[in-house]
Amino acid sequence: MTKIVIIGGVAGGASAAARARRLSEDAEILMLERGEFISFANCGLPYHVSGDITQREALLLQTPQSFKSRFNVDVRVFSEVIAVDRQRKVLTVKNLLTDEEYQESYDKLLLSPGAAPIRPPIPGIHSANTFSLRNIPDMDRILAAISVNKPKHATVVGGGFIGLEMVEALHQRGIAVTLLELSSQVMAPVDPEMANFVHQVLVQQHTDLRLNTGLTAITEIPVVVSEPDATDDYVEHPDAANHLELTLSTGEKLVTGLVILAIGVKPETVLASAAGLELGPRGGIKVDEGMRTSDPDIYAVGDAVETPDFVTAQPALIPLAGPANRQGRIAADNMLGRDEQYQRTQGTAICKVFDFAIASTGHSEKSLKRLGRAYEKVYVHPGNHAGYYPGAFPVSFKLIFDPTTGQILGGQAFGKEGVDKRIDVLAVAMRAGLKVQDLEHLELTYAPPFGSARDVINQAGMVATNIIKGDERVCHVEDVLNITEAQFLLDVRNPGELTNIGAIPGAVNIPVDQLRQRLAELPKDKEILITCQVGLRGHVAYRLLANNGFTARNLSGGYKTYHMTTAQF
Amino acid sequence: MTKIVIIGGVAGGASAAARARRLSEDAEILMLERGEFISFANCGLPYHVSGDITQREALLLQTPQSFKSRFNVDVRVFSEVIAVDRQRKVLTVKNLLTDEEYQESYDKLLLSPGAAPIRPPIPGIHSANTFSLRNIPDMDRILAAISVNKPKHATVVGGGFIGLEMVEALHQRGIAVTLLELSSQVMAPVDPEMANFVHQVLVQQHTDLRLNTGLTAITEIPVVVSEPDATDDYVEHPDAANHLELTLSTGEKLVTGLVILAIGVKPETVLASAAGLELGPRGGIKVDEGMRTSDPDIYAVGDAVETPDFVTAQPALIPLAGPANRQGRIAADNMLGRDEQYQRTQGTAICKVFDFAIASTGHSEKSLKRLGRAYEKVYVHPGNHAGYYPGAFPVSFKLIFDPTTGQILGGQAFGKEGVDKRIDVLAVAMRAGLKVQDLEHLELTYAPPFGSARDVINQAGMVATNIIKGDERVCHVEDVLNITEAQFLLDVRNPGELTNIGAIPGAVNIPVDQLRQRLAELPKDKEILITCQVGLRGHVAYRLLANNGFTARNLSGGYKTYHMTTAQF
Repeated sequence: MTKIVIIGGVAGGASAAARARRLSEDAEILMLERGEFISFANCGLPYHVSGDITQREALLLQTPQSFKSRFNVDVRVFSEVIAVDRQRKVLTVKNLLTDEEYQESYDKLLLSPGAAPIRPPIPGIHSANTFSLRNIPDMDRILAAISVNKPKHATVVGGGFIGLEMVEALHQRGIAVTLLELSSQVMAPVDPEMANFVHQVLVQQHTDLRLNTGLTAITEIPVVVSEPDATDDYVEHPDAANHLELTLSTGEKLVTGLVILAIGVKPETVLASAAGLELGPRGGIKVDEGMRTSDPDIYAVGDAVETPDFVTAQPALIPLAGPANRQGRIAADNMLGRDEQYQRTQGTAICKVFDFAIASTGHSEKSLKRLGRAYEKVYVHPGNHAGYYPGAFPVSFKLIFDPTTGQILGGQAFGKEGVDKRIDVLAVAMRAGLKVQDLEHLELTYAPPFGSARDVINQAGMVATNIIKGDERVCHVEDVLNITEAQFLLDVRNPGELTNIGAIPGAVNIPVDQLRQRLAELPKDKEILITCQVGLRGHVAYRLLANNGFTARNLSGGYKTYHMTTAQF
Repeated sequence: MTKIVIIGGVAGGASAAARARRLSEDAEILMLERGEFISFANCGLPYHVSGDITQREALLLQTPQSFKSRFNVDVRVFSEVIAVDRQRKVLTVKNLLTDEEYQESYDKLLLSPGAAPIRPPIPGIHSANTFSLRNIPDMDRILAAISVNKPKHATVVGGGFIGLEMVEALHQRGIAVTLLELSSQVMAPVDPEMANFVHQVLVQQHTDLRLNTGLTAITEIPVVVSEPDATDDYVEHPDAANHLELTLSTGEKLVTGLVILAIGVKPETVLASAAGLELGPRGGIKVDEGMRTSDPDIYAVGDAVETPDFVTAQPALIPLAGPANRQGRIAADNMLGRDEQYQRTQGTAICKVFDFAIASTGHSEKSLKRLGRAYEKVYVHPGNHAGYYPGAFPVSFKLIFDPTTGQILGGQAFGKEGVDKRIDVLAVAMRAGLKVQDLEHLELTYAPPFGSARDVINQAGMVATNIIKGDERVCHVEDVLNITEAQFLLDVRNPGELTNIGAIPGAVNIPVDQLRQRLAELPKDKEILITCQVGLRGHVAYRLLANNGFTARNLSGGYKTYHMTTAQF
């Protein structure tokens, strides 16, 4: 009879426990969770803060009792493992309610400790009303602070998934929000011009967005009790400091009522380190493809481990729920004698931002540049469904690929509806080893309410294939911004579009439908950089010019991509 | 200079013309369209009838003028090709406005004639107020009939895509609708139990759904002018017969104001046949993978041609817009000397049905049975997104696969949101040659508003993989309906679910969470058929029983699949 001990009762740990029991009635399964709750919906926390999820209980997916009755798993909450004796295969467990310590043996051990929110070592970081959001108690504290202090203003530090979700949640609570982001963009997994769509949404929603701005200090502002009849009780309340003065990296000061720290997470490796388990180059627990650590009887899964990147096979930290669940299942299989492998991680992810969504899979242009890897990119902005059917809204899609082989390296999308679908389709194509040349052949569902006869993905694939086959040469915004004397910038939109939407400085306007008659106006000795609104008419113009002996390139994604690359929010 | 003549100016023809011009400035391109309109949004027609698309002009994507100015294509509408002289490479064209006939030579000819609505040879088929819906004039006629006659009741004949869209469109116009369907289900591409979801929606929306019912005759009911002051004008109006008496295959009579024939389409092959081009076994024009007919200078695309089925490679008729567009592009490439191949057709399709959607890709169980091909199937009914996030609604998903290799043979889905996404993901996986064993590893976008950490597709893949690996034996509704003395039916839901939702007759109820303690109540000498609501708890129970030495099978999709298989609407 195998005794399996699982440390951590959320995503990966809970998946592993359930799977282990399904594989074996005999195994003794013990799950130790430091906190009060197991298997809670951590991805749902911001949506209870926002009020979208009205019932807190909805987030509690399992209880120790339900896990016991369904899976015969001995679940102990408030139970922290403080030492692992790998020689004797014995754990020291501390009951956090009683401070009592005791020992538990294991045959197979699974570490699923997760990742902890980063709290930067700045003055005042432990001030009142300064929170992270990792678990149910964190959420409860934030809701209590909102309820008690009724802040009119909150500050979110960090523009990642949780930061953006909390901006929206607080906004929905009627609280004005400042978002501080140290880098020049939110949503690090996507490239700046795609993040700029999100910046635009945030500003439209009256978020005080401060890019390139960090938090350097937090100071509690003493409550001045001006009313003579104010009760002592109120003044002495530990949360009474309901105003905080923030010092920003710009030197500015900001008074706020609530601070949410959402800078990022770091893998919880203290126990693993202390036990002498190997860590990887990114600071996570090192595991093989069977989720085994450097000790063959100890497995690890979830946000605490490094898994190989899909494209480079290099170790990466991917703190996402889907991978954690899959890893838990695989670890359980292998602890019970099977041989299952976790596959490489693409990092497919999505974030809702008000009525919009931003999503990505695979590598960004930024990360490929860092790796020094050759790539090409195309942008398309087609509607999420047939343009003539009501409610169509563009999906702005960036496809990144190997310019020689057509290997799919990554993709990013922004829009209202259908963003998830397009990134899912691309993620599957990428994982299956399809090339961009295959994308135009994908047969996707089409009816006017759902898509187009040539879907976003088909279209992006066609554009990329045109480049690979030499049917189109593209240029990008950086080329247009650095235009030379040997180049000529041609805008083939209708004049009204230039006036009403905007235009790239210096562009000469000849509408595409007049181009065939007006070729004489174009220089034969210069390279013609063509732009239109989204790149489609530019492609028609490109082919027309190329077939007439001109040297030309088409601006991928057209003026819309130019605008989102250059706009400042 | 190549002279390309294209017969038919919609989907495939228009795509080919635009592509041909992009490839060559020199080619002479002539497009001959029998009707008044080119490149109109034929998929949008029902949505203008419904009023969703308010502007008729929105359906007219291109005009002869716009095609001329952008693509330098000579477009002639009202121009019917009545003969092809393949020896001389000369067409006889008839101007339908003047009845004048003239000849046009070609170097390369493309046939894109489409498919014509089937009008069954029944008495009265040419009655007033009896319409098909193929093009803009058809739509105009339907709208005029609605406007003039103000029918209170309409009858749609045929429950395919157009039939279902027209049921909804007419309902939205405030017209009561009877839907006649000769077979036992609507939506032929899906299996009966999946079509039953649609039947349920139709009945909930007060559609008078008559399955297994055909139309055998239409009789115009003379208008009885009872008012003495009725004007002669009104009585003599050609559409005055605003009541029709329908005779049904059941012998019943039905009085209706409007009949929409949506029985299906047949490829337009008159011209191709007359020209001596080979037809295929399904009655469409035979083409090779380069879209060439049996005459190397004549190409054909779209609803008129047969293309190879993705799974069987056998010729199939797939009258869908996406394939037509892709084929047009490929034909243009090859007419101009390239070597492009159309890939096999999966028949991926979707239909909106009121607030719901039904979609499929690949083969149905029905068609695999007809082919005598071995398959297994699984059903799952997970939410379209995290259950704790508001608005979750199940996606009922049927995955059909090869039980030995795991090859994906097809999939069907019904639900509200996210049906298109799941079928798209499956279609890509299928096309890429992934197996069901790969589906659990797909890394799809997840945040609570969009999906689940284990998405519908991951979950279906896990269930299928469990079967292939021998981790689960499943049974199906047909097994439960034909239960033997050697079998025992166990329902592991909670008692309240059986009472409130319904239960399979004869099932013994032991809730899954009590099962471990109540094993003694189960027979060791019988095969235990397990059911729960959707199959998840049944799986837990299956593993528990199997690990305790029982012989068992789990009903795939649980009571929900049972109900949708057996319910009568």
